[in-house]
Amino acid sequence: MPAAAAYVGSRTIRDWEAPLVEPSPGQVRVDVAYTGVCGTDLHIFHGDMDSRVSVPAVLGHEMSGVIAQLGPQVGGWEVGDHVTVMPVDWCGDCPACRAGHQHICHRLDFLGIDSPGALQRSWVVPSRTLIRLPAELPLDLAALVEPAAVACHDVRRAGLRDGEKVLVVGGGPIGLLIAQVAARSGAQVLLSEPAPGRRDQAVSLGISVVDPGAGDLAERITGWTGSAGVDVAFEVSGSGPGVAAAVASLATRGRLVLVAIHPRPQPVDLHRLFWRELTLLGARLYTREDFTRAVQEISTGGIQVRPLISRVLDLSAAAEAFRLLDSGSGVMKVLIDCRGEQSGIAG
Amino acid sequence: MPAAAAYVGSRTIRDWEAPLVEPSPGQVRVDVAYTGVCGTDLHIFHGDMDSRVSVPAVLGHEMSGVIAQLGPQVGGWEVGDHVTVMPVDWCGDCPACRAGHQHICHRLDFLGIDSPGALQRSWVVPSRTLIRLPAELPLDLAALVEPAAVACHDVRRAGLRDGEKVLVVGGGPIGLLIAQVAARSGAQVLLSEPAPGRRDQAVSLGISVVDPGAGDLAERITGWTGSAGVDVAFEVSGSGPGVAAAVASLATRGRLVLVAIHPRPQPVDLHRLFWRELTLLGARLYTREDFTRAVQEISTGGIQVRPLISRVLDLSAAAEAFRLLDSGSGVMKVLIDCRGEQSGIAG
Repeated sequence: MPAAAAYVGSRTIRDWEAPLVEPSPGQVRVDVAYTGVCGTDLHIFHGDMDSRVSVPAVLGHEMSGVIAQLGPQVGGWEVGDHVTVMPVDWCGDCPACRAGHQHICHRLDFLGIDSPGALQRSWVVPSRTLIRLPAELPLDLAALVEPAAVACHDVRRAGLRDGEKVLVVGGGPIGLLIAQVAARSGAQVLLSEPAPGRRDQAVSLGISVVDPGAGDLAERITGWTGSAGVDVAFEVSGSGPGVAAAVASLATRGRLVLVAIHPRPQPVDLHRLFWRELTLLGARLYTREDFTRAVQEISTGGIQVRPLISRVLDLSAAAEAFRLLDSGSGVMKVLIDCRGEQSGIAG
Repeated sequence: MPAAAAYVGSRTIRDWEAPLVEPSPGQVRVDVAYTGVCGTDLHIFHGDMDSRVSVPAVLGHEMSGVIAQLGPQVGGWEVGDHVTVMPVDWCGDCPACRAGHQHICHRLDFLGIDSPGALQRSWVVPSRTLIRLPAELPLDLAALVEPAAVACHDVRRAGLRDGEKVLVVGGGPIGLLIAQVAARSGAQVLLSEPAPGRRDQAVSLGISVVDPGAGDLAERITGWTGSAGVDVAFEVSGSGPGVAAAVASLATRGRLVLVAIHPRPQPVDLHRLFWRELTLLGARLYTREDFTRAVQEISTGGIQVRPLISRVLDLSAAAEAFRLLDSGSGVMKVLIDCRGEQSGIAG
């Protein structure tokens, strides 16, 4: 049984014997229960972020676990507490931090990218990154708190108001979470997704869907909104056509939240932006407030995350998880079970 | 002496004998004093808007004048009142109007584009479009209230706060007005403009300038802002490099106001928008509030518009004004003097 799974370059994930690290002052050691594999992890796997990542790199930043050991000078936490981690650590001194936007610090240490992540049995993190979980929240569901916090942040950034009409472009895990959080916030939601399997999954979650490939997206929105357009669109597809569809869908003074990563500049219809006085908002990561809401929504069943979990694989099969996600085989979220035989963590 | 100048297609402006129209109920007839030629008028002159404009088209929407005749059912106005016109008339019933954004109504009648404009001796307009001018405000300066209202709207759309750092990309008339209104709103302003003549003019207005062609724009902003970037950028150039420079200049959570018209989609660095959680805001036209501020700023000398007036030509030389502006000969704003010999309007 490996202690960790590491990206070693060239689309390769390998078992790796991570040494057991003692927590320094202000740190805790968390026995990891479940770690989700995220789109960013896949980008790293593809080599797109090799200039940022030092190999071997233990990835993973969507997780749940149980505190196993407290380092010196850690207050407010006890061994056995169920936790997740807000995987960002900031410098406190750059222009972004000084302006109060620590979550997008210019020298951000993103745990699981810039420093070791949660694809291991035991993970040492600063106690200030911990988020408390209710003991009764199943730990597999809790591994989705981090992506749910992304969705909460995106919806908050939109300034969504009760009764507004929302288009979500892209029905992957983040798109489905945004759709649910937006609906919980009082919005009427339509999700645009070309893959039939993902549309079916959205429907099973109670989300209205449309197939952009069928060519009726614009017509559907015209009919739905009485020719006004939607109040808010979320671009979660990362594609040029997704951006174009989102911009085209918006009502006068509508807001478009850019959630997906677009590595290259995309053509944007700036004339429509001008003509309708639209607003485009970049949204990245989250703050503690978003994690708090995500924990609450998942715990109360306000948003459903169990249907998003396609597969659970053992840590020793982490490489298989990446292959599955890479194959476009229709899986949504794959969790890695990181509990060792001695961890004593129950399901 | 012609009664009007009209665009007749094929880059041609001709003298035109506009019939004297009696004001209908709710309308007034204004003896026009001065009319400015705007970038949009040039677009029409170039044939770019032939699908929207019916020829012969009397253009002109930046103007000043004196009420000459009141139609029936017009209250609150008297013959002899000095006025300008907010040249937008809305339907009141489309989705934009119903949402309170009448100024960008989906069926907007833009006076001087969709219906006859102010390049004539006498102009009949709905009394609801009138804006009162102080009698002591010179009427040539008052012809710049409309572009100054654009600048006021753009600055308001940015939500500009005291002490913020602002980059204005493009030093034409609107860029110079935005720079002045932003400075009056407490901002520190830097203007980027490649043309030496326009930079000189900005400097004479007390505006700090930088030449983007000299390749030191990024360095200048880094030094000026302590590597943070500017809080707000205004894109007034209408060029791809202008958009790129504006996006690149912004601090974390910075706001970019899109003022210029980009007829074709432009490549936009959406990754930076995401990474720094930037906001892009389309800004079009103005509301009555913006006109009120523009009148006040020009009347009190808070912003200087006299230096922007490069030439004043008689209505009979309107075609020459278009040729001048089209030649890129360094003129800023050209006014057309529309006062007839019988108008009795003093300078």
